Amino acid sequence: MSRKHPGRFHIFIPGPTNIPERILNAMHISSEDQRNPEIPDLTIPLYKDVKKVFKSEKGTVFLFPGSGTGAWESAIINTMSPNEKVLIYRFGQFSHLWADMFQRLGLDVQIEDRDWGTGTPPEEVEKTLKADTNHEIKVVCVTQNETATGVTSHVEDVRKVMDACNHPALLFVDGVSSIASIDFRMDEWGVDCAISGSQKGFMLPSGMAIMCVSEKALEAHKNAQLKRCYYSWEDQIATNKDGYFPYTPQIPMLRALQESCNIIFDEGLENVFKRHHRIAEGVRKAVLEGWNLKLCAQDPYWYSDTVTAIVVPEDKDAKEVISTAFNKYHLSLGAGLTKVAGKVFRIGHLGDLNELQAAAAIQGAEMAMIDSGISVKPGSGVAAASEYWRKSI
Amino acid sequence: MSRKHPGRFHIFIPGPTNIPERILNAMHISSEDQRNPEIPDLTIPLYKDVKKVFKSEKGTVFLFPGSGTGAWESAIINTMSPNEKVLIYRFGQFSHLWADMFQRLGLDVQIEDRDWGTGTPPEEVEKTLKADTNHEIKVVCVTQNETATGVTSHVEDVRKVMDACNHPALLFVDGVSSIASIDFRMDEWGVDCAISGSQKGFMLPSGMAIMCVSEKALEAHKNAQLKRCYYSWEDQIATNKDGYFPYTPQIPMLRALQESCNIIFDEGLENVFKRHHRIAEGVRKAVLEGWNLKLCAQDPYWYSDTVTAIVVPEDKDAKEVISTAFNKYHLSLGAGLTKVAGKVFRIGHLGDLNELQAAAAIQGAEMAMIDSGISVKPGSGVAAASEYWRKSI
Amino acid sequence: MSRKHPGRFHIFIPGPTNIPERILNAMHISSEDQRNPEIPDLTIPLYKDVKKVFKSEKGTVFLFPGSGTGAWESAIINTMSPNEKVLIYRFGQFSHLWADMFQRLGLDVQIEDRDWGTGTPPEEVEKTLKADTNHEIKVVCVTQNETATGVTSHVEDVRKVMDACNHPALLFVDGVSSIASIDFRMDEWGVDCAISGSQKGFMLPSGMAIMCVSEKALEAHKNAQLKRCYYSWEDQIATNKDGYFPYTPQIPMLRALQESCNIIFDEGLENVFKRHHRIAEGVRKAVLEGWNLKLCAQDPYWYSDTVTAIVVPEDKDAKEVISTAFNKYHLSLGAGLTKVAGKVFRIGHLGDLNELQAAAAIQGAEMAMIDSGISVKPGSGVAAASEYWRKSI
Amino acid sequence: MSRKHPGRFHIFIPGPTNIPERILNAMHISSEDQRNPEIPDLTIPLYKDVKKVFKSEKGTVFLFPGSGTGAWESAIINTMSPNEKVLIYRFGQFSHLWADMFQRLGLDVQIEDRDWGTGTPPEEVEKTLKADTNHEIKVVCVTQNETATGVTSHVEDVRKVMDACNHPALLFVDGVSSIASIDFRMDEWGVDCAISGSQKGFMLPSGMAIMCVSEKALEAHKNAQLKRCYYSWEDQIATNKDGYFPYTPQIPMLRALQESCNIIFDEGLENVFKRHHRIAEGVRKAVLEGWNLKLCAQDPYWYSDTVTAIVVPEDKDAKEVISTAFNKYHLSLGAGLTKVAGKVFRIGHLGDLNELQAAAAIQGAEMAMIDSGISVKPGSGVAAASEYWRKSI
Repeated sequence: MSRKHPGRFHIFIPGPTNIPERILNAMHISSEDQRNPEIPDLTIPLYKDVKKVFKSEKGTVFLFPGSGTGAWESAIINTMSPNEKVLIYRFGQFSHLWADMFQRLGLDVQIEDRDWGTGTPPEEVEKTLKADTNHEIKVVCVTQNETATGVTSHVEDVRKVMDACNHPALLFVDGVSSIASIDFRMDEWGVDCAISGSQKGFMLPSGMAIMCVSEKALEAHKNAQLKRCYYSWEDQIATNKDGYFPYTPQIPMLRALQESCNIIFDEGLENVFKRHHRIAEGVRKAVLEGWNLKLCAQDPYWYSDTVTAIVVPEDKDAKEVISTAFNKYHLSLGAGLTKVAGKVFRIGHLGDLNELQAAAAIQGAEMAMIDSGISVKPGSGVAAASEYWRKSI
Repeated sequence: MSRKHPGRFHIFIPGPTNIPERILNAMHISSEDQRNPEIPDLTIPLYKDVKKVFKSEKGTVFLFPGSGTGAWESAIINTMSPNEKVLIYRFGQFSHLWADMFQRLGLDVQIEDRDWGTGTPPEEVEKTLKADTNHEIKVVCVTQNETATGVTSHVEDVRKVMDACNHPALLFVDGVSSIASIDFRMDEWGVDCAISGSQKGFMLPSGMAIMCVSEKALEAHKNAQLKRCYYSWEDQIATNKDGYFPYTPQIPMLRALQESCNIIFDEGLENVFKRHHRIAEGVRKAVLEGWNLKLCAQDPYWYSDTVTAIVVPEDKDAKEVISTAFNKYHLSLGAGLTKVAGKVFRIGHLGDLNELQAAAAIQGAEMAMIDSGISVKPGSGVAAASEYWRKSI
Repeated sequence: MSRKHPGRFHIFIPGPTNIPERILNAMHISSEDQRNPEIPDLTIPLYKDVKKVFKSEKGTVFLFPGSGTGAWESAIINTMSPNEKVLIYRFGQFSHLWADMFQRLGLDVQIEDRDWGTGTPPEEVEKTLKADTNHEIKVVCVTQNETATGVTSHVEDVRKVMDACNHPALLFVDGVSSIASIDFRMDEWGVDCAISGSQKGFMLPSGMAIMCVSEKALEAHKNAQLKRCYYSWEDQIATNKDGYFPYTPQIPMLRALQESCNIIFDEGLENVFKRHHRIAEGVRKAVLEGWNLKLCAQDPYWYSDTVTAIVVPEDKDAKEVISTAFNKYHLSLGAGLTKVAGKVFRIGHLGDLNELQAAAAIQGAEMAMIDSGISVKPGSGVAAASEYWRKSI
Repeated sequence: MSRKHPGRFHIFIPGPTNIPERILNAMHISSEDQRNPEIPDLTIPLYKDVKKVFKSEKGTVFLFPGSGTGAWESAIINTMSPNEKVLIYRFGQFSHLWADMFQRLGLDVQIEDRDWGTGTPPEEVEKTLKADTNHEIKVVCVTQNETATGVTSHVEDVRKVMDACNHPALLFVDGVSSIASIDFRMDEWGVDCAISGSQKGFMLPSGMAIMCVSEKALEAHKNAQLKRCYYSWEDQIATNKDGYFPYTPQIPMLRALQESCNIIFDEGLENVFKRHHRIAEGVRKAVLEGWNLKLCAQDPYWYSDTVTAIVVPEDKDAKEVISTAFNKYHLSLGAGLTKVAGKVFRIGHLGDLNELQAAAAIQGAEMAMIDSGISVKPGSGVAAASEYWRKSI
């Protein structure tokens, strides 16, 4: 073996994120009998803690093996019937894939394309729902955080217009790269299916689909006709109460999720959000004030506190930046996907992270940009970020 | 916290099994960027090694987040269309659940019930297939190891009768609690979908569905009409070649699986099978010769080398044995499920295990039986097992 | 690499003992700055907890890098001056090595040899001290547990005769293989230097010398003239109060020691002693009643609850038993040392252990004995042990 | 528990250094029997690899529990007799403590004080040795890297003058914070006792004293009269050949040391030195060119590639910088010790480290300096360092 990457690798993709040692150690355990009488001592408090992270008291939690994509599928097949209508706004690779999944699973998807760099427009949702007088739209989808472009949509604003229209559609939220990092309020915002994954704000390895669903979603579940078995809710509703799983769960991941909640509550959920905002704001200052480059997000209204997509000058290739960062500086940046491939690179700044870690990422991105012929002033990124951080920490 | 279980807990359920330290350590790693250029260095050799464990050269491997149940689902939805016909023999809880899944997913399932304690009868399969002159049966299912009863079916014998009938049905094998512990030969036996899970012979935590499928299965996939998305093969066929996943994989589990293959090949796959047989034979001697009790498996033809189900005397309760073993002796035994609940307890003896560990399980089961009023002679179990082991190791 | 030892290796030497996962995980941490302001949050409570294990309120704790042998040296050089007189009874390899160390360090050692299989005889100590009217003997040594022979001396009885003689000598106790496993009472028994190591009852890896010393020992320290530096107490006395070390401590071992104390207190210190006694008693029943063999310990007064030395028949070789156990059954037994080499083998049964683990060791030893031509009845060992355990747990 | 330090803590003291995951995992193992027949498979190759790191073929390795301080003691007591004469140059806290140890152990120490910021002056050594016509000086000490001031002495230059004088004294080198990070050549430079610790270039936790000694040192050992036992070489010389230890070794640390050697050789020993030099040079550019501050090291001849001591302006307090870095930025810097307390802070840059990690440390130090009222331009440190690194990697 050759040692390609001395020192600690800097992982700044928008997930998987850094796994804290407390979580790695919580997973480093012998096998446990998933039917033993002490399992509910683990699972019952865990489900309660996960609900706290979703800010839900009335919700029901489901934990499935799978990435966030698996959570999407579980939400869809458990609440919908063939050919039912869904409204989704598409403005990035992940909202695109979500829309695509609805189609593949046999739903009637009304896809509204928006500029990449914007998000779900509440005013447009309002118009569409108002026009839907027969209430054919069964589900409204909001990608709370479009990971491909660094855009945050405002779920609460969508809720307001749904309420204003008195529209009965279910509200689905993709919170894969936002929940546990950016404020999310299941009950207050009337979200029906909120989905997330383990490898982002929860700071675990990938592999666990984490969902919280409303009573209204459970009601819809009763009549949902899409075929399902493994990801079906009916077998796992009881887990919230008795603590046992219908299949063999990945217990190390359950213990890891408990430790994740412990870590989040040790810091304080609101403090976690503040830290994410502060780090994100520093990264944006590096981009806008230090490097004089543009964000993919078109307006502060859309700025994401978990991922920043940076537009490179038109004649430069973001892929070269990413490749140089990886090979020369041991830094993983996120690539631009499909429409924005080569045009943007992304810095993920979520999960278990502090300012100096972000400084290393800014510095590495800067060095890789200069290496790639992009004209930025050495040290300008961290100069802008650090002055903000010094005053705001 | 009180310390309920000093010392090392003895886990003798038929999965999850003991996780070797080498595997736990292989999983104890920082997050990796699943899109980085070095990922194929991990995945390409891994897929090759997994195929060696399945004894397949022509097969295609799929690794999905999920338990074995998830692997079942993936096999079904990727090869079948609504209302197609399946033949399955039911003789235990897991063959029952498999049949049930086919039904829930909208297939036409011909369920043949057999005594619990027997397995898939080749001669009956032959009769049924011969009668199916229109080749309406699209899939023949064999539960290679029925975990609920400790029964091994002989896949090679089923293959022979399928060949004898010249029947074109796909052959599905549930190898969840057999593959990597009991001999399995994908190519030689003409298996089309072989499914397994990570938490048995592969010695990992639960959470990864491991499948190998034949070229014929891939052909069937092209016309399969069941709806699917997350567990769909089309997005992951390329992974065998380019090494990248369509969704964020659980990289620690991939590294763990590689270490699992390393451990298996270090010992030698055939040596692994021999060790499982030797330990199982010792357990059976303890039951039959030491304790004078009966196995659930009705005939040596059906004996399983990975799990032994022991029938307690009619007036005794196997649940009490299990509960005493757990609480007093820090030993997890498998329960009897549904039909045999309270009538049998099970000793799982697969994965990373040696004779003295099995001796501890035998001794603990014996002590719990005596505590529960079952008349067996102290020390008789290990006396029988150990004399066999002394001579056969 | 070939895989010589599938499954979990059975370690039944009298130390190092099994390391609980909680401790391994507590050690699996990034480096910490040993001078950071949060270090006393770790060390101050740790020193208090260690004192509880020693049952001392007035003592001072010292933690040095080193095995128990290192602790011996620190006790000697910190309290004694060249050519001072020491009284020690020698009845096994470890009391021999202790005596030898006194000599190598330049002390005047009065060695009283006793049969291996007996311990420190209080009545002889009394005679000797009474005769020492000039109080030339500065230190009386008691090996609380002679690991080589499985013999426990009774410190409290020695204390009584010292009090009866009104003799001012310091009382040194080697508690390497007893403290945290067998009752020890620093203050009540008036012990002046009690030494232990990390790899026995404390369940850590080897590498930390753990000592508790009395106020009288600290007084003696002031005038002690033996040369010393690294193991000197003067630099570390303050650690009890301010929590900082004079040299770079092995912080993972400190965190491990804290977790060790947590585990001990979770179970309850007295429960730990009871468990050790119960397991030991089972092992002795296997030897005496099951196998009809003899213990090295000559009388129940001397029986050790942490290690049992078993005498093989005169025409047999204990080394063959040990070698067979290791190679064939993946079981490490302790060898007979020097005088009893080939004549005894030892089972260590201390630390993180339960009855079924001990049953595996008994069974493995039995199988290795039969393989080595020693005539014992198969299953007889666990039969005797298990019946005792069934009734006493 | 409150969560004081989200994200990864940045440890930039000059040891303990970052422990690579490969090493942490190598230590995360069950107890092993230190007398088992497979132990030499671990130890014999390990001793050979350690010698390669010391660049020695003829040397003998000793591994003792202890920090570097313990290694010092072992070297002294194993080669010297009471009142023998030692020559040592003192120019920092660690050369001071070394001199102090010689005194406490009863040697006659000729201490030559030099400015802190300089090192061992070959020309002065030459004068002194020439004057020592009776060869009373038995040992010449060189602190290869004075950790307190960031000063590297040139062992090869001292060797030259010793050869020029034809002086028979032993040459002792303190390589605690240099060996495995800065070039060191045991045999070529004729070093007699080279000592190191585990927690610096070897990237392990603290706790293992690592030494290599020459044949001449072994010869001196035979007549050395200082009292010793635990740290005595005689009991451990054989370990180089048979692989067994005289006391219970800390096997996880031995396995960790093997993995350390593996990592070093994977990268290449010379590449490790180059990386250390490159990172150090970047840090120095940040200090000298970015911040316009002074180094403690007075001349490039003395610059250390493992630790940089930075002098703060006279009216500022380095302690405040350190405290701010720790509490606000989760960064541990090294303090100025005794003479330079409050006047310098230190950045340790050795072990498992890359440029972006060092960038984070530079940035954190800069932010803490600005917070502490020291006038440096934001971003200036990394600007200087990064431009150097961009061109030199």
